[in-house]
Amino acid sequence: MVPEARRVKRIDPIFAAAAEAAAEAAGAIIRPLFRSQLLVDSKGDASPVTEADRQAELAMRALLRARFPGHGIWGEEFGPEQADAEYLWVLDPIDGTRAFVTGRPLFGTLIGLLHRGRPVLGMIDQPVTGERWLGVAGEPTRFRAPLGGTPRCRPCPAVGNAELSCTSPDMFDPADRPGFKRLRGAARRVTWGGDCYAYGLLALGLVDLVCEATMKPWDWAAIVPVVEGAGGRVTGWDGRPLTLGSDGRVLAVGDPAMLAEAVGLLGG
Amino acid sequence: MVPEARRVKRIDPIFAAAAEAAAEAAGAIIRPLFRSQLLVDSKGDASPVTEADRQAELAMRALLRARFPGHGIWGEEFGPEQADAEYLWVLDPIDGTRAFVTGRPLFGTLIGLLHRGRPVLGMIDQPVTGERWLGVAGEPTRFRAPLGGTPRCRPCPAVGNAELSCTSPDMFDPADRPGFKRLRGAARRVTWGGDCYAYGLLALGLVDLVCEATMKPWDWAAIVPVVEGAGGRVTGWDGRPLTLGSDGRVLAVGDPAMLAEAVGLLGG
Repeated sequence: MVPEARRVKRIDPIFAAAAEAAAEAAGAIIRPLFRSQLLVDSKGDASPVTEADRQAELAMRALLRARFPGHGIWGEEFGPEQADAEYLWVLDPIDGTRAFVTGRPLFGTLIGLLHRGRPVLGMIDQPVTGERWLGVAGEPTRFRAPLGGTPRCRPCPAVGNAELSCTSPDMFDPADRPGFKRLRGAARRVTWGGDCYAYGLLALGLVDLVCEATMKPWDWAAIVPVVEGAGGRVTGWDGRPLTLGSDGRVLAVGDPAMLAEAVGLLGG
Repeated sequence: MVPEARRVKRIDPIFAAAAEAAAEAAGAIIRPLFRSQLLVDSKGDASPVTEADRQAELAMRALLRARFPGHGIWGEEFGPEQADAEYLWVLDPIDGTRAFVTGRPLFGTLIGLLHRGRPVLGMIDQPVTGERWLGVAGEPTRFRAPLGGTPRCRPCPAVGNAELSCTSPDMFDPADRPGFKRLRGAARRVTWGGDCYAYGLLALGLVDLVCEATMKPWDWAAIVPVVEGAGGRVTGWDGRPLTLGSDGRVLAVGDPAMLAEAVGLLGG
């Protein structure tokens, strides 16, 4: 179930422990703002969220820098730091800002670790429900599941049987729309919303296909190990592994047997 | 904040107690299926959900029939029973089937009570997170809030400042699309997904506007008292109160001052 390339190197458990600690630090900052009067009063103005985002990223950076002074860190809010290091932490404190601002507990804190550009560890943390997915290359995905669920993708070899998920119909550039439209037309059904949470649901066997675009490294680095450790695959729309040079178009399948058909539909 | 018409008659607290009991009975049936292996294995086939839906409705019907033999009951699954009674319970055991099937804790059990066709009590129950909104005509909405939140709509007099929510861009008939498109174009932002949960978020002051169509009485009966007890309004696209004869087009605003502008945009 785990691709060969993911088996090469055993990932030191201290990295997972650091990701857990970073998620705790971020959650302690983010949680009090969720559905708070400050957020209600801001009427959708992003500034209180931006402030929580920044503080949470600073807390994670301080923690990771202290534990691994030789590692690089790249966060959405404060950019890259030692980005050419062998190990690079990739952080998004609040993935799913719209979900956060509107009170939906479907946003997430994303913590990814790249080893020479390859995602080897990923965490999706939902600090309000307490759900936490941890993927480590070569190991089965773990899931802290207060709401239930088992971290294993389900079989679904054909796009025609697939439950497709996508954050928003508005996330695609004009050039990407025909490909997405073909995939959406071929899939059995589509549900909207979700951000990183949708990839978590794919890793629980509840969604079969996620297709998105305009994704940055901090959007996808953490989800790759989570999905692949549950038996799925995350690639570009061309079916190739994501790299720091990828174009931001992301395709995730729960069943690797579906990948070629999905890539074919996206490519036209 | 509460419209005059809602103040006329004091609603007997035994009705709220019955709604609480009915929600408990439904939740006990629905909860074990959420993210279960049975649901994963069904691969989006609705039949296990339909079965839970039916069993939950039967449990609620039995409870309400025993407490109020003179009341009518109208549920999504089993239709009307004494529908011409003075009091009519309107039930939807799982509102948001797609959210349920894909493991999103944003579906809800809806329990509404109509008095001579007018919604006088409504409950939105989320059996997985434990959130529960209770609206009673003439009283402030109550909210059981394990994830936080205060049941009070926020001021937002202009559509241009509004956070709009809608379950899916695919829910509109061709005739409804131009109106929705105008409203969506005028709103500050839109988030997708949510079903009944979006109205709950509106009642927490986190969303300002919900616009939907093809809604049945069991979709809207429960949400009217929840939203109106939090200071908002729920009407048809024409701004008039919803009735059993309404056309299924539903508009909810957190700030009644926004209603006329939203109605104008929808009407063209």
